[in-house]
Amino acid sequence: MKQRKIICITGMPGSGKSIVAQTARNRGIPVLVMGDVIREEASCRGLPHRPEILNRIAKELREKEGLDAVAKRIANKIADISSHVVVVDGVRSLHEINVFKKYGEVVIVAVHASPKTRFKRLIRRGRPGDPQTWEEFFERDLIELGFGIGNVIALADYMIVNEGDVKETINLAEKILEEVLRDG
Amino acid sequence: MKQRKIICITGMPGSGKSIVAQTARNRGIPVLVMGDVIREEASCRGLPHRPEILNRIAKELREKEGLDAVAKRIANKIADISSHVVVVDGVRSLHEINVFKKYGEVVIVAVHASPKTRFKRLIRRGRPGDPQTWEEFFERDLIELGFGIGNVIALADYMIVNEGDVKETINLAEKILEEVLRDG
Repeated sequence: MKQRKIICITGMPGSGKSIVAQTARNRGIPVLVMGDVIREEASCRGLPHRPEILNRIAKELREKEGLDAVAKRIANKIADISSHVVVVDGVRSLHEINVFKKYGEVVIVAVHASPKTRFKRLIRRGRPGDPQTWEEFFERDLIELGFGIGNVIALADYMIVNEGDVKETINLAEKILEEVLRDG
Repeated sequence: MKQRKIICITGMPGSGKSIVAQTARNRGIPVLVMGDVIREEASCRGLPHRPEILNRIAKELREKEGLDAVAKRIANKIADISSHVVVVDGVRSLHEINVFKKYGEVVIVAVHASPKTRFKRLIRRGRPGDPQTWEEFFERDLIELGFGIGNVIALADYMIVNEGDVKETINLAEKILEEVLRDG
């Protein structure tokens, strides 16, 4: 039996990870979102999904269950899926990558945009918890880097540069998915 | 007076940083190589430029003079150069980036290739100190990541994906240099 492929999407805030995740969904590939684990946990505890609460839960989970706590919960979900290829959106550290390696062949897809571009996008997006000043933006970047996300980006099997042309990004994502599915 | 531009090239071993550095040299832009500082130091001490000696000196410099020891020496060299734009090849951490920020406007250019591609290149290159097995390669990657190179890559202003077409990489590097020179 062929090994399952686990496509791990990584990228800094505002890089455009969700475009790649959506491209996978459109192809019928199951997508598991790392952040959903935290949102689920908040729901279980009867707490609202406010950024400061989600951040606190994420921190707690890591402190209690280890740096790979979220990845382990996602891995349990992967085990329940029959699809030969799954996508995990929002991987942030090599600890998490190492968890997924136990469950299949990991393919890292990084999405990159310059800090300037990402800042503009996040300002425009304006989700609760998104930064409103360059200082807030930079601070959030440093928190992400603190998780070790830079290490995952540096070791990416595929790097998608997403500076503005969404169509081009979707095309590239489709090409990459095609290649991974073909090799599998 | 306009601020000096310091283009910092970063990238994992075998990603193809030197193609970008050479493109800058061909345009007459001065290029300072981080590793040359270590080689100079070895020469001053009358030691040969063998990888294990260079690694030892690099480690010593950081321990004695701090994580930004090499960057500080490069910064002194930059101060002696009259060119409005300089390139620094081989930046490995945000500590180093922060040193350069004191001397001008920093533009980070990251060069990326997948681990598979980089491994093949390094095997083909076969410089002294280059890995000969996947295990050695991966270990060297982890050493680079330990310096914090992933953080610099994640915050790149420009990302060059260099998977094989050297001409395309040179073209992209030229376009980026053009843009930086024009903005300057």
